[in-house]
Amino acid sequence: MEIGMIGLGKMGLNLVKNLLDQQVDVTAFDLSATARSVAQSNGARTVDNLAKLVAQLTRPRLIWIMVPAGKPTDTTINQLEKLLDADDIVIDGGNSFYQDSIRHGKQLATAKIHFFDVGTSGGMAGARHNGNFMIGGPKEVFPRIEPLFKKIAAQNGYLYTGPTGSGHYLKMVHNGIEYGMMQAIGEGFEILQKSPYAYDNAAVAQVWNHGSVIRSWLMELAQQQFAHDPQLSQIKGVMHSSGEGAWTSEEAIRLHVAAPVISAALMMRYRSEEADTLNGKVVAALRNGFGGHAVEKNQ
Amino acid sequence: MEIGMIGLGKMGLNLVKNLLDQQVDVTAFDLSATARSVAQSNGARTVDNLAKLVAQLTRPRLIWIMVPAGKPTDTTINQLEKLLDADDIVIDGGNSFYQDSIRHGKQLATAKIHFFDVGTSGGMAGARHNGNFMIGGPKEVFPRIEPLFKKIAAQNGYLYTGPTGSGHYLKMVHNGIEYGMMQAIGEGFEILQKSPYAYDNAAVAQVWNHGSVIRSWLMELAQQQFAHDPQLSQIKGVMHSSGEGAWTSEEAIRLHVAAPVISAALMMRYRSEEADTLNGKVVAALRNGFGGHAVEKNQ
Repeated sequence: MEIGMIGLGKMGLNLVKNLLDQQVDVTAFDLSATARSVAQSNGARTVDNLAKLVAQLTRPRLIWIMVPAGKPTDTTINQLEKLLDADDIVIDGGNSFYQDSIRHGKQLATAKIHFFDVGTSGGMAGARHNGNFMIGGPKEVFPRIEPLFKKIAAQNGYLYTGPTGSGHYLKMVHNGIEYGMMQAIGEGFEILQKSPYAYDNAAVAQVWNHGSVIRSWLMELAQQQFAHDPQLSQIKGVMHSSGEGAWTSEEAIRLHVAAPVISAALMMRYRSEEADTLNGKVVAALRNGFGGHAVEKNQ
Repeated sequence: MEIGMIGLGKMGLNLVKNLLDQQVDVTAFDLSATARSVAQSNGARTVDNLAKLVAQLTRPRLIWIMVPAGKPTDTTINQLEKLLDADDIVIDGGNSFYQDSIRHGKQLATAKIHFFDVGTSGGMAGARHNGNFMIGGPKEVFPRIEPLFKKIAAQNGYLYTGPTGSGHYLKMVHNGIEYGMMQAIGEGFEILQKSPYAYDNAAVAQVWNHGSVIRSWLMELAQQQFAHDPQLSQIKGVMHSSGEGAWTSEEAIRLHVAAPVISAALMMRYRSEEADTLNGKVVAALRNGFGGHAVEKNQ
């Protein structure tokens, strides 16, 4: 089995290592020479442009794109459309918006290139070993790529989800759920921190991971992090996001689904990115205006 | 080892079976003769009132209360205060409010009876095998009951959490997190249901349980339930609650902790208990009032 990998970032490189472990022959392309040399030292063949990647692979080709969603993925697909031949297969394993994936599928279909939108979960550890994959695309072509997922996924860790778009759609909702679960866990530990008791966060996460209702991989990650830094005092509580939570909230609005938890989790991420807000100034000023309530002054 | 169990409901009975498996000698009391006969058929000694329970046990006694929080627990503790002797130990394994547990601890301490507030998680399955216990109470007495938890808890599945109240406090916050996680999962599946794709909910839950970031015991339960009833069409989406989520939200308010996810999850439970709401009528009427927007009429 042979595959071309585009993108050797955190996810792509771990996926390459996973594929090599499974005796898949990997040719990899990344703009960064450093990333290429790491992949090479792990046993991958590497090339420094897309045309060489395509030339290296035997037809019908199988190519996995693992670059940031949006423009980088768009550009890559535009280039591949020109370089590839009919019956080649392109997998987008990144976090693309599902509507973009539907567009990419249509675009490549005009050149008779098959496209699969694959949501990848499990983080870097999952890309490296026992990954999790939600796979949308042409059903009749899926049997050609299924052996690949049998190799790199956890047992029962891949699912053919339906037509093009359904893989990234499912991954989007997965991440929306993830936002809600993570925010709930964060709120819980903050209550404990301000509580009348002196809880040991690592011990709490550990006991919650052994038989409680909320045992989960996220709580295991919390346990590891608290064991390393009991109050997480080395990091700031700024919660960035990369789009999937926002898309899930937008989709809930589009579908008229009441999703206050996923949406509030997203809003708390945005709030965490601000040191101060105009929202706060407005409410403080209004309280002062009608009730003479004190405001805190900027120095 | 010998224990007296008060309350043979879903949790109490499973705990009795767990204790008997571990060669603990159990004398059990419940008001229901049916519950007593089930416990008896499993190998427990049973009695039909509290005085007999106390009389049966060797001093210093160890008694586990597993009755509903609030009045039933209050009443039981009032009775035990009169029946027990100095140096006996009382464990409240129910979902009592932590302030009640602090009060119970003080009340029993006046009679030199030791009190532990123990949050129990893991559901019925956990009570039966490999339970999860968060244990608050007098540190110097804890070594006397630790062997019990070594027997009935999952490995690493019990934690001494600090002074009286800290066990039920931690269980309260655990349940608050649980509310948020469950609501996030519920919102996710509702988006999938209304999505443009025809997802198989059981297959989705299964793939999410094998390598994804949101793998968790709650998702495993969802997988089981969807496997049994793919759209859960046999049950209504009414989400009852038994107090801990509300207490967690109240505690967040008291401590000035922003906890929108846990609070919204609670509010969605309340909303689910209503077929229609005055809230809805008011907003519909106001929209009609200022904009002439149509209202839906009651038939």
